[in-house]
Amino acid sequence: MAEHTLIAVPTHSRWNADLAPRLTIEPGDTVHFECQDASGAQVHPGMTVDDFQSIDRGRIHALTGPVAIHGAQPGDVLQVDILNVTHRGWGWSSVIPGLGFLKQRFTEPFLFHWNLDAATSSSLAPAIVPLRPFCGIMGVAPVEHGELRTRAPGIFGGNMDVRELATGSALYLPVQQPGALFSCGDAHAAQGDGEICINGIECPADVSLRFHLHKRQQLAGPLIESSPALDHASPAWVVVESSTDALTAAHNATNRMVDLLTSRWNFDPIHAYLLCSVAMHLHLSQVVNEPMITVSASISKSILPQRTLFPTSL
Amino acid sequence: MAEHTLIAVPTHSRWNADLAPRLTIEPGDTVHFECQDASGAQVHPGMTVDDFQSIDRGRIHALTGPVAIHGAQPGDVLQVDILNVTHRGWGWSSVIPGLGFLKQRFTEPFLFHWNLDAATSSSLAPAIVPLRPFCGIMGVAPVEHGELRTRAPGIFGGNMDVRELATGSALYLPVQQPGALFSCGDAHAAQGDGEICINGIECPADVSLRFHLHKRQQLAGPLIESSPALDHASPAWVVVESSTDALTAAHNATNRMVDLLTSRWNFDPIHAYLLCSVAMHLHLSQVVNEPMITVSASISKSILPQRTLFPTSL
Repeated sequence: MAEHTLIAVPTHSRWNADLAPRLTIEPGDTVHFECQDASGAQVHPGMTVDDFQSIDRGRIHALTGPVAIHGAQPGDVLQVDILNVTHRGWGWSSVIPGLGFLKQRFTEPFLFHWNLDAATSSSLAPAIVPLRPFCGIMGVAPVEHGELRTRAPGIFGGNMDVRELATGSALYLPVQQPGALFSCGDAHAAQGDGEICINGIECPADVSLRFHLHKRQQLAGPLIESSPALDHASPAWVVVESSTDALTAAHNATNRMVDLLTSRWNFDPIHAYLLCSVAMHLHLSQVVNEPMITVSASISKSILPQRTLFPTSL
Repeated sequence: MAEHTLIAVPTHSRWNADLAPRLTIEPGDTVHFECQDASGAQVHPGMTVDDFQSIDRGRIHALTGPVAIHGAQPGDVLQVDILNVTHRGWGWSSVIPGLGFLKQRFTEPFLFHWNLDAATSSSLAPAIVPLRPFCGIMGVAPVEHGELRTRAPGIFGGNMDVRELATGSALYLPVQQPGALFSCGDAHAAQGDGEICINGIECPADVSLRFHLHKRQQLAGPLIESSPALDHASPAWVVVESSTDALTAAHNATNRMVDLLTSRWNFDPIHAYLLCSVAMHLHLSQVVNEPMITVSASISKSILPQRTLFPTSL
């Protein structure tokens, strides 16, 4: 149960299964990650939009890691307990021509700076924006080898931009490579379901995560056991699916939730289907990480008997 | 400020601008609607799935109304305060071959009966399903004349299946026909965002609504001022859009939310866009009312200064 600290640099901006781990830990250990903002500390308070346009976009998303988990193998499940995500009082959001959900309407470059109090920001007054920092990207090295851009999420996690990944939640990921090779970054002090302009409140962050390993467990893709959100009263089980088609992602998430209720709570499949119809919620977590759309299917934990989904923890 | 009671029968199962109003009221009046379940009282507790298959599906959705609001004209906004929606202790959900989000997986007909306590149902034990009754359908007569099936929602409201339409919420609809001609029904004691099997907990219900009229107001489609939900801590402004394509519905809802923030809260459009990116949530309210998908874009009321959106109420 050791604790480790991993400073941000050198960050990495590609998924790469052959990247040497910066740290190797035992299951049960905690790592305190220092995370740069998604630009890799190129954006700074007061930066002009002109200067913003000349940043090196190849350095996005400037992830911290990878961390190898001793003994992790493909077929295992990595549990990531999100102990704490803290912003550092400042963040930014931008409009980048050609990107974003309303790119036909908002065609000019724009850079906005946020001052962040502990729990809110009034930089867009009169709006009072509630803050709930999380990592837009948490993932293990993908099964494919070679350098892969970080924009698209997948089975390995990655750029899911699922706002439920805040302090108090746990993320379960299927291990794809020996050692798992976990990285995180792209912290958002706040973000809506959709992340429509392509940014949340982008910010540097301090992120404390505890890792557990569950040997030889079935898991088809990312699963979250969420903490109470600012605007959701109850913690939930959240299945995360990404696809180039929104309804395909929703289909896959729904099928996985039916499977989860069937395999872990012993519902008949038809009863699981009905339960999802009356109590499961489909959210568009992000609609801008082209070509992928991410859909979350969530069901309140209060509806179901308590379960430890992966009991054989290491 | 009169109160009226409208018994369910005769129900109607088509939108029809030429249907004579069963009741004409003044703005400010309250109507207590008796609503049959969506089947038009053909389904009853203990009904077998065999009997269910022979019901007259042409009688779905068995709406109560229409109610004419005196003085309402196209170009006005009808405000519907949802004072109370109460189930009657029993409901049903079904699987209908060829319908539903997982219709390739669940191909056999199925009928499930729910016993409903005041706030929960334990019929699918060990799940405890929270109840929050609402009308799957609330709408005014569409602009088109002739008999229109009720499955597809639209600008006029209709089969939106937006679960935020529960007790305490207000629905704003753009009037399409003289008198507005409001009807409601298809009550659900509970339903998830998605309504994936094509049913919520379908139930008869008692529905009390108060109507206000706002003359000559811009409103491009349904808008909800929601009450606190069971699983959402904060009331929200909710823009509702339906389209044959999920992302088109999400686009239209997002554009309308930007317009709302710009026109009613005086945000610069670019600031409204950023605010939506960090604080607005896109939900798939229903994915089964073919050919339409309904997306809700919501922003917590607590984020924004209080506004009465349509102040010139009649």
